Amino acid sequence: MPGGGPVSEVAFTGGRQLAVEPTTVEGVQLYRLPLYEDHRGKLTVGEFGTCLPFVPLRYFITYQVPGSDVRGEHAHRECAQFLTCVKGACTVMVDDGLHRAQFRLDDPRLGVLVPPMVWAAEYDHTDDSVLVVFASHHYDPQDYVRDYLEFVRGASERRSAGSRQGAPGPTPEPG
Amino acid sequence: MPGGGPVSEVAFTGGRQLAVEPTTVEGVQLYRLPLYEDHRGKLTVGEFGTCLPFVPLRYFITYQVPGSDVRGEHAHRECAQFLTCVKGACTVMVDDGLHRAQFRLDDPRLGVLVPPMVWAAEYDHTDDSVLVVFASHHYDPQDYVRDYLEFVRGASERRSAGSRQGAPGPTPEPG
Repeated sequence: MPGGGPVSEVAFTGGRQLAVEPTTVEGVQLYRLPLYEDHRGKLTVGEFGTCLPFVPLRYFITYQVPGSDVRGEHAHRECAQFLTCVKGACTVMVDDGLHRAQFRLDDPRLGVLVPPMVWAAEYDHTDDSVLVVFASHHYDPQDYVRDYLEFVRGASERRSAGSRQGAPGPTPEPG
Repeated sequence: MPGGGPVSEVAFTGGRQLAVEPTTVEGVQLYRLPLYEDHRGKLTVGEFGTCLPFVPLRYFITYQVPGSDVRGEHAHRECAQFLTCVKGACTVMVDDGLHRAQFRLDDPRLGVLVPPMVWAAEYDHTDDSVLVVFASHHYDPQDYVRDYLEFVRGASERRSAGSRQGAPGPTPEPG
């Protein structure tokens, strides 16, 4: 399993309301989507461009992933992703180069927004897990950053450029 | 289970190639999406605006649907949908007012494109089924046609208007 770092607990109760929570990782947000339940079963829903911040140009689904294997382990330069595990469960680790967190996705109502230049990996899949990922861009192999040290350097440069331009940066580490 | 009508068989073999097949129901297409498989499991993918004909503004997921229950049973005036059963299986029935077909969706690689003004229903869900639906529009209760006779009249009027405008219509019924 990759890395250590803080573990963010995921727990919520029923209801139709959408909830969006920031996390300790820059730009990463945890979504709790509405649930509509009746005698015909359950339905959860997300709208793109409104409650979800981008309109997807691509989706992919991973399934039959061995519990011992790790998927992801890269960042994207421009592409944002929204991950939701619609059956079974898996863990998503996110890392902005300064902070790291992991989330257990075990309900179709839960989703994680992963912005560009955040490293992500998925692991600890249950045998029946199905992960659906919405991506803001079409597939482009040039958009992938697969080397972690290159990612850390790039994330640092992006933060420095943001600071110089007066954009809000992450809270500095204490000490 | 709704209606009778012809049953279109779904069967395909592996491979990375996207295949799109017309069906007997006007505008309904059956998609067989690419598969990428390695030691880390399986991945299937679709791109919107290229291989899939619209960019979604909404998704919803239905799950824990009792096998005896029927979902859908309506048409949309403007909204197109793409349905893929990513776990377990369910049957999708589609009806353009003249022709009817049903498809068993039992693989994340299979999808059904349902254009506006096609009646659709989903049933015979397995206990573990998870159906993901991409919709071309945000939710609008005015877009639903929930009365079948109203739908048949509307579909007929749409065909007549299309014929008057020289648009290609469906093949007339023999006799």
